[in-house]
Amino acid sequence: MPTKNPVLIDLKFNPQIIADALRNAFPDRGSINLLDQANSATDLAKVDYAVLWNPDPALFSRAPDLKVIFSGGAGVDHIMDHPGLPDVPVVRFVDRSLTTRMSEWIVLQCLTHLRQVEAYRKQAARGIWRDLPQPEASEVTVGVMGLGVLGQDAAVKLRAMGFNVIGWSRRHKVIDGMKTYDGDHMDAFLGDTDILVGLLPLTKETTRIYDAALFSKLRQGGALGKPVFINAGRGKCQNQVDLRLALETGILGGASLDVFEVEPLPARDPLWTIANVVITPHTAATSDVGALFRYVETQIAGFERGEALQNVVDRATGY
Amino acid sequence: MPTKNPVLIDLKFNPQIIADALRNAFPDRGSINLLDQANSATDLAKVDYAVLWNPDPALFSRAPDLKVIFSGGAGVDHIMDHPGLPDVPVVRFVDRSLTTRMSEWIVLQCLTHLRQVEAYRKQAARGIWRDLPQPEASEVTVGVMGLGVLGQDAAVKLRAMGFNVIGWSRRHKVIDGMKTYDGDHMDAFLGDTDILVGLLPLTKETTRIYDAALFSKLRQGGALGKPVFINAGRGKCQNQVDLRLALETGILGGASLDVFEVEPLPARDPLWTIANVVITPHTAATSDVGALFRYVETQIAGFERGEALQNVVDRATGY
Repeated sequence: MPTKNPVLIDLKFNPQIIADALRNAFPDRGSINLLDQANSATDLAKVDYAVLWNPDPALFSRAPDLKVIFSGGAGVDHIMDHPGLPDVPVVRFVDRSLTTRMSEWIVLQCLTHLRQVEAYRKQAARGIWRDLPQPEASEVTVGVMGLGVLGQDAAVKLRAMGFNVIGWSRRHKVIDGMKTYDGDHMDAFLGDTDILVGLLPLTKETTRIYDAALFSKLRQGGALGKPVFINAGRGKCQNQVDLRLALETGILGGASLDVFEVEPLPARDPLWTIANVVITPHTAATSDVGALFRYVETQIAGFERGEALQNVVDRATGY
Repeated sequence: MPTKNPVLIDLKFNPQIIADALRNAFPDRGSINLLDQANSATDLAKVDYAVLWNPDPALFSRAPDLKVIFSGGAGVDHIMDHPGLPDVPVVRFVDRSLTTRMSEWIVLQCLTHLRQVEAYRKQAARGIWRDLPQPEASEVTVGVMGLGVLGQDAAVKLRAMGFNVIGWSRRHKVIDGMKTYDGDHMDAFLGDTDILVGLLPLTKETTRIYDAALFSKLRQGGALGKPVFINAGRGKCQNQVDLRLALETGILGGASLDVFEVEPLPARDPLWTIANVVITPHTAATSDVGALFRYVETQIAGFERGEALQNVVDRATGY
């Protein structure tokens, strides 16, 4: 049996949670946790596998023999943008729990806007008992941008709640029970959309894709009156100045935002206080690191048996 | 062809919405709308059918020949409690739209408590970016009390969102994919429940059933820490003083309430301002009166062809 080299861990998450989860992870090979100061000068020359989230700039020169890179989350932009990235497979984290939590958050936000939660809360704060005209979910079209694992799961659950759901993706996808649009037909997709759910990965093409021009193409005068923007994907996909202006000028009737161009969102950012905007601190679907390490272990075991890796990123598209 | 007598309408809803909907309803027999002052002395002796919500005390003596009574909503307590109620079939309103809207509201409330919406909103009001420990839906058991059309639809949708769902009903019911408890096993049901969803009809047995003793039997120390109470059924099923005390003393960790012992909930009621309590003004599932009148028309047509009425209330149980 060959010697098994430890797995390199460089995850810019909560350090205590990482340390706790590593205690029981990778029992047959161990790990090197770069968040641990004791490892600041550890020799990484022979490391085969790395699990990364926002890795250090010098990482790939310190670990030149990596065979596979695992992302600590569904997104991989924090790795793909890295100037020293070696030409080895990059694997994204796909996990039932992460998918479920993302859909919980997305359905919650769509229902929050459908059922006018902020309007009722404002009435309640003044003890006002008054019903508001109420469309039902089937009168509202949710447009999901990005039809990967997360987008497809959200679509199924939004349909179960009665919403009309359509989807857009760069490459054409056929999905049962759902009208889909591909790259060239984004304007038609936007024109049919009352609630836009952004789940696009961050690539050169999607950087600041959610901008004034895009917001202006969403359907006006649908059952909710004005369109709503929900971003659960990547903050750098939104032009945040355009987003704020669209909300302030009434192009958008509301928003739910979990991600931002700069995180944490600064305490004095005007987005915190705009009416009908829900803000959460990038918590829509946090990775369970215990599940992450089990996933990596399973993938490594298959890889070493000669099986294909799952959920490998396409270098051409960046996701 | 026999002469068709007009349908009697006594619905204490928004008068303008009723008047608008009646313009196109019952084209072959017409209607007598008691909200219209012009009908205050109209002879009702020959009326066969009535559609009622909180009918006037004198109604049944004015209309002694009723053959069928239709409720304007899912509940029938406003009719069954009536001292002059004749011994004719009482039909409840069952409607896809009403069911869908009720499930929208229930899933929204369960997700609101699961995803700690109030805690995040309080942080957001101060520009605070901080994640909170987050259980997922599968770690939380929603207990649905009342397993009629509404309860079963809510259960299906809560399960689709990942919640563990159990149910209680007076009479034993077997429902696919769901553990159910009947009359004698309420304590076991409550002890397994993290979020209690009340959908019971109002009867003598269920009046003030949600009281201090019941709240104290809900599971403490589940994934949400403390149990949550959601009432989407009837306000008189809750002992509202007990409910307020359970919230103030921390027996309950939160609540979502659409119905109250007295409606409208008075502007100075302390419930409006208790932490982690969502209040809506009996709008979880408002009846679409256009759909109601089409439903009544269809039922009358079937009845006159000699077919059985649908959704007839059991006089013995009161629902």
